[in-house]
Amino acid sequence: MNQQTTDLHQLAKSSRNASRILASASSAQKNEALLAMAEALLASQQTVTEANEKDLTYAREQGLSKAMIDRLVLNEKRMQGMATALKEVAALKDPVGEISATQTRPNGIQVARMRIPLGVIAMIYESRPNVTSDAASLCIKAGNAVILRGGKEAFHSNHAIAQALHQGLEKAGLPREAVMVVPTTDRAAISELLTLDECIDLVIPRGGEGLIRFVAEHSRIPVIKHYKGVCHLFVDAGADHDMAIDLIIDGKTSRPGVCNALETVLVHQKEAKAFLPVALEYLRKANVEVRGCPETQNIDPSVTLATEADYEAEYLDLILAIRVVPDMQESIRHIQQYGSDHTEVIVTHDYARAREFVRKVDSSVVLVNASSRFSDGGELGLGTEIGISTTRLHAYGPMGLEALTTQKFVVFGDGQTRHNIPYRT
Amino acid sequence: MNQQTTDLHQLAKSSRNASRILASASSAQKNEALLAMAEALLASQQTVTEANEKDLTYAREQGLSKAMIDRLVLNEKRMQGMATALKEVAALKDPVGEISATQTRPNGIQVARMRIPLGVIAMIYESRPNVTSDAASLCIKAGNAVILRGGKEAFHSNHAIAQALHQGLEKAGLPREAVMVVPTTDRAAISELLTLDECIDLVIPRGGEGLIRFVAEHSRIPVIKHYKGVCHLFVDAGADHDMAIDLIIDGKTSRPGVCNALETVLVHQKEAKAFLPVALEYLRKANVEVRGCPETQNIDPSVTLATEADYEAEYLDLILAIRVVPDMQESIRHIQQYGSDHTEVIVTHDYARAREFVRKVDSSVVLVNASSRFSDGGELGLGTEIGISTTRLHAYGPMGLEALTTQKFVVFGDGQTRHNIPYRT
Repeated sequence: MNQQTTDLHQLAKSSRNASRILASASSAQKNEALLAMAEALLASQQTVTEANEKDLTYAREQGLSKAMIDRLVLNEKRMQGMATALKEVAALKDPVGEISATQTRPNGIQVARMRIPLGVIAMIYESRPNVTSDAASLCIKAGNAVILRGGKEAFHSNHAIAQALHQGLEKAGLPREAVMVVPTTDRAAISELLTLDECIDLVIPRGGEGLIRFVAEHSRIPVIKHYKGVCHLFVDAGADHDMAIDLIIDGKTSRPGVCNALETVLVHQKEAKAFLPVALEYLRKANVEVRGCPETQNIDPSVTLATEADYEAEYLDLILAIRVVPDMQESIRHIQQYGSDHTEVIVTHDYARAREFVRKVDSSVVLVNASSRFSDGGELGLGTEIGISTTRLHAYGPMGLEALTTQKFVVFGDGQTRHNIPYRT
Repeated sequence: MNQQTTDLHQLAKSSRNASRILASASSAQKNEALLAMAEALLASQQTVTEANEKDLTYAREQGLSKAMIDRLVLNEKRMQGMATALKEVAALKDPVGEISATQTRPNGIQVARMRIPLGVIAMIYESRPNVTSDAASLCIKAGNAVILRGGKEAFHSNHAIAQALHQGLEKAGLPREAVMVVPTTDRAAISELLTLDECIDLVIPRGGEGLIRFVAEHSRIPVIKHYKGVCHLFVDAGADHDMAIDLIIDGKTSRPGVCNALETVLVHQKEAKAFLPVALEYLRKANVEVRGCPETQNIDPSVTLATEADYEAEYLDLILAIRVVPDMQESIRHIQQYGSDHTEVIVTHDYARAREFVRKVDSSVVLVNASSRFSDGGELGLGTEIGISTTRLHAYGPMGLEALTTQKFVVFGDGQTRHNIPYRT
């Protein structure tokens, strides 16, 4: 065992111990810690900014793109934003301890399920340093300890933020080990971390597809993953054209770089001739480049022809694929083949088809006559979002606090045994 | 890519396709299939018995133990049992399609969660051939396709059972590919299977710790696992001695070979002197060998001294470890150190300590004044049990039909967009 292995194992063990204290901390104590963390963060503004400056200097030396550097910057406004987010998490309902599914069995034992924290959660993420406090706050609110492994570009910033969070934790009488930062940024450390299944209960990678695949392939610990969002909107026969156009414009243009943005529009052939010319005009006005199927091209020859790669693409840009389909079944088949189990929309006036689309499309969020951009923890009423799962185990779709917990069975009896005890009968 | 890889990939793809049909099958159709499977199984009794005879001959040639051979036997009574189990699963409530957590957001969209199948489940198990029909029936009831990979000792029996199940599926108009049997029994096939994360959503290994560790270490697909059951019972200060003895006798002796049997009893030091002599007498009468801590040995010098290994052991036999502890905190600490997150019991008359034990012990089933033997899907009111999870992701504790499903978000709107559409305002 080399030094690093020992260190990481030791770090994970400290997290496990801290998680036991967090698991029985009261809501009041956890909220006190979150508010103290917000205060400590604001009070540490100078230290954090200085650390951030080191990261920025390094980033400029490395010739990182302007967009990448912008993500890294921690100015006063962003620090305020992080503090506000901490306070908002403090205000959320604590899911821990919630009792449900209570039933009394014929023998008189009372069975219930009690919501409990998962334990230790490892977050593996890239650039944005605000994830450090956002992720930590949600894990702590749900009674978990968290191990943070951010990107090397944000190394100093992340450490400075964590120091402030530690001050907050200690002020509320909670162990600083509830938030641990991995002290190295090499990928080998991730590989090590992913074998520590005795100490870590869940890994959440956030970042590019490369990082997520690396984590999924090397982890012995359960991983909640989200590869990409190839979201579809189907314009049904008889759909309201204005509504469909609004939902397409909102879905594609309101923030093209996020995962719940639309990537492909499927149009029922009955509507294509009347709908597409108008829709294409609005899309052009909104500077959206369209890549269409042959039928779309027939209707508007200026449209570029879409290839297989277009149907598979998560553009994250002002580009949209459009395909005319013979019926709803084909739209569902297309979604099954090219979709990413993220978010799909049907625009329809038909009751039966709305029901069928909702039943048959097995993506994590299925919407009728509403924008794909609502596929978000906050918008769906979860209060917040720690990530989106596009695989079906444990959580599917946007994940709020509840996804950071599990349920145990609790049983209250009066001495019941499963079999008769011979010497008592 | 070698031949086997192609075949398994093809097999898993067929399962994926079948899972889509199963997912939208009605409860009535699934139940019809389950009843037809029961009938076909009874009608195939001769074929199945002949296949079973081949397995038994092989088992005897290989010199398998009497217990192992007994597990393999498929006589008329066991076939009847399998058919009855299929009928019971048909009678269970279908979890698929259940809507919950409905809320209307301020913008008027209505958000709900709808229960859906997981998709394709791979069951990897050892000896008992009845798992073939039990697991298949639960997966199908919850709308999933299943890939079965049983042990090599039961190879012919499993195939014959699967053939009968296929007849039942086809009679109800469902695809036979909903139940696939892996055509080879070498461990390499398991390794292959565990990489097919595009086609398989969940792996459930059932068997010895070796098999489960192998699956957990090689799987790129989420695994629900259960290593062992080291269950504890804590006799609190002031506990009713008769109740404690009954719960110990029931927990240890009613079926010592199962995972919810007791392995260690922790006794509050205030009770030790009065309680242990009586308890030891009953345990002796029940032929239970006791291994005790030094204090237990002081009270009864005939008790063997327990070692660390005893506190870690899942005896699955008429052996029990006993340790005297200074207080409840130490019992909780002991459970955290040696427990397997399976099932723990407190025997107490104290309200506050009952609450604290339930809150602080984070095993999957925690019982107050009731036998550990109730830690079972049927006994806890889940209707059935496909396994027990001792890890916290997705399911924790006994798993019923609901654990074979997940929830997607469904949203009903009237054209809501997330941002104002400029040309409409």
